[in-house]
Amino acid sequence: MGSPEFGEILHRVNFSAPRNFATSLKSDIKETLFPDDPFREIRKGSAGKRTWATLKYFLPILEWVPHYSFRTFRSDFIAGITIATLAIPQGISYAKLANIPPIIGLYSSFVPPIIYTVFGSSKVLAVGTVAAASLLTASIVGAKVSADEDPALYISLVYTATLFSGLFQLIMGFFRLGFLVDFLSHATIVGFMGGAATIVIMQQLKAYLGLKHFTTKTDLISVMKSIFSQKNEWRWESALLGGIFLFFLLLARYVSKKRPRLFWISAVTPLLSVIIASLFTFLIHAENHGIQIVGELKKGLNPISISQLNFSDYFPTTIKTGLITGFLALAEGIAVGRSFAMFKNDNIDGNKEMIAFGMMNIVGSCTSCYLTTGPFSRSAVNFNAGCKTAMSNVVMSVGVMLTLLFLTPLFHYTPLVVLAAIITAAMLGLIDYQAVHHLFTVDKFDFCVCMAAYLGVILASMDIGLMVAVGISICKALLYVARPGTAMLGNMPETGMYRDMAQYPCATRVPGILILQLGSPIYYANSSYLRERIARWFIEEQDYISQTSGESVEYVVLDLSGVTSIDTSGINMLDEVRKLFEKKGVKLALCNPRVEVTDKFVLSQFVETIGPEWLFLTVKDAVATCGFLLHTTKEGNKQKLNPMATGGFANDSNH
Amino acid sequence: MGSPEFGEILHRVNFSAPRNFATSLKSDIKETLFPDDPFREIRKGSAGKRTWATLKYFLPILEWVPHYSFRTFRSDFIAGITIATLAIPQGISYAKLANIPPIIGLYSSFVPPIIYTVFGSSKVLAVGTVAAASLLTASIVGAKVSADEDPALYISLVYTATLFSGLFQLIMGFFRLGFLVDFLSHATIVGFMGGAATIVIMQQLKAYLGLKHFTTKTDLISVMKSIFSQKNEWRWESALLGGIFLFFLLLARYVSKKRPRLFWISAVTPLLSVIIASLFTFLIHAENHGIQIVGELKKGLNPISISQLNFSDYFPTTIKTGLITGFLALAEGIAVGRSFAMFKNDNIDGNKEMIAFGMMNIVGSCTSCYLTTGPFSRSAVNFNAGCKTAMSNVVMSVGVMLTLLFLTPLFHYTPLVVLAAIITAAMLGLIDYQAVHHLFTVDKFDFCVCMAAYLGVILASMDIGLMVAVGISICKALLYVARPGTAMLGNMPETGMYRDMAQYPCATRVPGILILQLGSPIYYANSSYLRERIARWFIEEQDYISQTSGESVEYVVLDLSGVTSIDTSGINMLDEVRKLFEKKGVKLALCNPRVEVTDKFVLSQFVETIGPEWLFLTVKDAVATCGFLLHTTKEGNKQKLNPMATGGFANDSNH
Repeated sequence: MGSPEFGEILHRVNFSAPRNFATSLKSDIKETLFPDDPFREIRKGSAGKRTWATLKYFLPILEWVPHYSFRTFRSDFIAGITIATLAIPQGISYAKLANIPPIIGLYSSFVPPIIYTVFGSSKVLAVGTVAAASLLTASIVGAKVSADEDPALYISLVYTATLFSGLFQLIMGFFRLGFLVDFLSHATIVGFMGGAATIVIMQQLKAYLGLKHFTTKTDLISVMKSIFSQKNEWRWESALLGGIFLFFLLLARYVSKKRPRLFWISAVTPLLSVIIASLFTFLIHAENHGIQIVGELKKGLNPISISQLNFSDYFPTTIKTGLITGFLALAEGIAVGRSFAMFKNDNIDGNKEMIAFGMMNIVGSCTSCYLTTGPFSRSAVNFNAGCKTAMSNVVMSVGVMLTLLFLTPLFHYTPLVVLAAIITAAMLGLIDYQAVHHLFTVDKFDFCVCMAAYLGVILASMDIGLMVAVGISICKALLYVARPGTAMLGNMPETGMYRDMAQYPCATRVPGILILQLGSPIYYANSSYLRERIARWFIEEQDYISQTSGESVEYVVLDLSGVTSIDTSGINMLDEVRKLFEKKGVKLALCNPRVEVTDKFVLSQFVETIGPEWLFLTVKDAVATCGFLLHTTKEGNKQKLNPMATGGFANDSNH
Repeated sequence: MGSPEFGEILHRVNFSAPRNFATSLKSDIKETLFPDDPFREIRKGSAGKRTWATLKYFLPILEWVPHYSFRTFRSDFIAGITIATLAIPQGISYAKLANIPPIIGLYSSFVPPIIYTVFGSSKVLAVGTVAAASLLTASIVGAKVSADEDPALYISLVYTATLFSGLFQLIMGFFRLGFLVDFLSHATIVGFMGGAATIVIMQQLKAYLGLKHFTTKTDLISVMKSIFSQKNEWRWESALLGGIFLFFLLLARYVSKKRPRLFWISAVTPLLSVIIASLFTFLIHAENHGIQIVGELKKGLNPISISQLNFSDYFPTTIKTGLITGFLALAEGIAVGRSFAMFKNDNIDGNKEMIAFGMMNIVGSCTSCYLTTGPFSRSAVNFNAGCKTAMSNVVMSVGVMLTLLFLTPLFHYTPLVVLAAIITAAMLGLIDYQAVHHLFTVDKFDFCVCMAAYLGVILASMDIGLMVAVGISICKALLYVARPGTAMLGNMPETGMYRDMAQYPCATRVPGILILQLGSPIYYANSSYLRERIARWFIEEQDYISQTSGESVEYVVLDLSGVTSIDTSGINMLDEVRKLFEKKGVKLALCNPRVEVTDKFVLSQFVETIGPEWLFLTVKDAVATCGFLLHTTKEGNKQKLNPMATGGFANDSNH
């Protein structure tokens, strides 16, 4: 449809047959659930190759076991032993946070890592329990059942919640809903983690001060009240011991940070601290001087706990705990897996990871384990220790097994305050001041989300903080789509380019033509806004040019390059805008609609309504045509918008 | 920073000082809450003019009263009388739907229209009660308190809910939260209205069949059970009378639709039906032959009902009813106001309308009225009858007042089945088959949303249906942002333009360079997706060209023209993509970031990380530069990416 009168328009918008529903639905589903095209390998090659690829897809262990070498094992062995030394004190400490017997923390570092080795796709992730999920479990389950008064019921609820977490993770992975995790933004996670770390540290004050009773609530005010109401119970011995070990641990971490080669120092210090402190307590019988100790630990491997699963009265509590902690554990595990995969120039499949997490928690809940995931601290140590494959998890698991079989009596005299020091040191590392500062500089809104999560967690509770932050983030997501940016374009000197006049002061107005750039999808949530915004651009521009040059706007060109999709409300909006302008004698032209948009234009017959000649491939073409018409109509007795004046062009127009 | 080696790059991306936080916050708030710039008039002219503009802003009646003429009044008078004849039977009918005494329906057409005349900005909107909100009130309040057993309490809760609706609407308007109504998409409203109309029609079966007892539930199954369990109570007299009047009403509407000049026929038929049927019943004493009648109606104007407002035990019920019905009434009223404003080439301010609705419901709740808004049917009749200003509401109000004072005894013998016929006829008009068919053709997803709302309403309840539909719509909004479209661009022959290769088959690949177009905001909810999607484009393209030409991709160009904003997660994602490509020896270039994006690039120092010379204003410039480098490195001993090879260019690069 070249119109030689208006300069050379080489290409026009392509309106050839729109994609049918099945095609676009298939493409939408693929983009939503399989953006990384996970079955790429499975589709290639012969039947045998395909079967092997399918097997490998479902059991990632097959990726690396066939060519596993002794050399690789040596690296994995060292890494595995290192994380085992971290796993034992961490397992005991976090179990205390969850108000469950310390031995369950050790159990949880035995079975789940083996399961992960089979199903997990990350080479670096080290499996274990995490502080945030432990505390969250304690706070939700503890609100219903007291761990002190009915420990058996409490533990059974914890196992059941773990089962639900696992099932939830498995289902999420199976239906490839991994993208839901993306709705936890970086800012949310920073704030939430910081808040969780803060309240975990506050909980440790119980151990530091040697208190016997403590509030079950986690918010700042309750904790402070609880502490200061028992001033006369404070024990300086405990505080001193804790302080010394905390200093020792922080020093070790500082050294390791300064010299990455010495990473093993910070990795072994926790176990070393436990051993020294236990020996010390054993020798001077410090348990008689106000230092609380771990006490009796059962010897032996994980007992089967299927019979302890509880599906009766506490169903709402267990399912709530399961969903929240499961989601949180997923978010942390996947974020950790992704970060380290990035370092190794590798890619992990979030949905496969979910299935692996789900499997390990389902099996875990039946073998006396509680919620596990890929904690950041342990995975970082694993990475630094040079692990090559998931085999390091097996080595850790064996290390923990040996401990369970032979070494548990050694932990009898471990002072609780040393565990508190280990937790505190780990938690201090999770409060990411730098990230918060970065958020503050770059994006104030993200900073607000982060602070909302932080304050929500420390002033109310972890679940409330998380929900507040997710709520704000989702509102922001909705606002993004409800208020997409628009800009007025001007001509860049000596080119046919049109750019935002606010951004490029050198861009100049085109007389009589208002050029607007839209962006984002246009649909029900923003179509009213866009209608009003376009009308406002028009009024403002009309005011401005009538004051300066006495002319008026005769053409409005909308650049749709940035519009990724449109729905029925959006098309209605464009049509209303067209009518509105038509009544004022102003003509609307559209530029460069994407394929999703042209499809809808054709289906809704909007192309015929506006007239296909008013759709251009570039702003340049649109401006050239409008400029020509403007010139013609001005010459020809001000015959505004008379299609006859435009010669052959008019044959295509139908208004 | 012109680099003459790479052809002529006239303009570069502008990185001059980013807008500070206060400026961008102010602009964001303005775009979110004041997109239509409502105070434009108030800022102009002298102090006196400004005061007058402010007054006019808050009391839109001042816009038209000063130059109100007799001629205008004549038009308004005719329209007002016409809508009054519709208001009386509708008021009585809808009050029956809400399970409140019919007289309250008449009261509600007296006070609120007068308030609206003062505060409302629409010239066409006719105020009255609506079927959907009436039924919704009955279903939510009725679930707590039976209207038959404790009518006084039931009515007091209805008034209280109306007060909350009014307060909610006022607050929404005051804080300019009108955009929230936009989240009810067109598809949702079509489905919801259709479903509401269906269940309202089902409710009328009670009157058609002359039943004395009926379920309080509204879902299809309960209603059908209730009807078929009382088969022996069915009265043919009632059904016959109802059928005749329904036919009569539908015929009148059909005639009016075919000949718009005869609009008054369908407008007067309801009142005419009521009069004929009442006379008939009075004359043959049909109330003794199975025809139920309205019965005693109090004579007199609205009593004050402040003392009946109930803030005690039923607080959750009243506030829930108030919020849901208030929101729904807003959505309908604003949609109606907007549609008719469009016809008249006028614009209404949604937020001002909310304030007007809020005021009329607050005053209404204190004067024995229940929830009112701008119903579509009545406004359409008003428009057809040629109303010029909101004065037609006053005329209607006076008409209703005269009825209340002198004519209520006339309605004593009105058969309920005639009211049922009036409601049925109105409801059949609300089931918009054509809109559903249009949705099905243009947008299958919108069709699903619509059907979900419809089925939710008829199978569960109105509030569940509404929530399901809003939930799906919001999920869609989130999915839009979670999965923004990406496309691979190719060169359009004989131009410097780059367009989607899937859309324009004539576009051709540029050897060694992969050009991708992104769109939508890039932020936490879609950054992982975009990372994987970009990686997949790269792998697929690499596979394709290595199979066809044996070459490889050396440059990836991302066109950011359509990216309306970016957050910290988005910038991290771009940086990760850059690192990923760097490890593969592939260089990343970005094109045409918008001002919101360059701001963030500068603040986060991403410009320095990627190197400002890798940001281009157009794809053409980027391709020219990459092409030149590709050529140079191929010539010069394959010195891939050696910045020294590019001469002066290298001085700007810092990697």
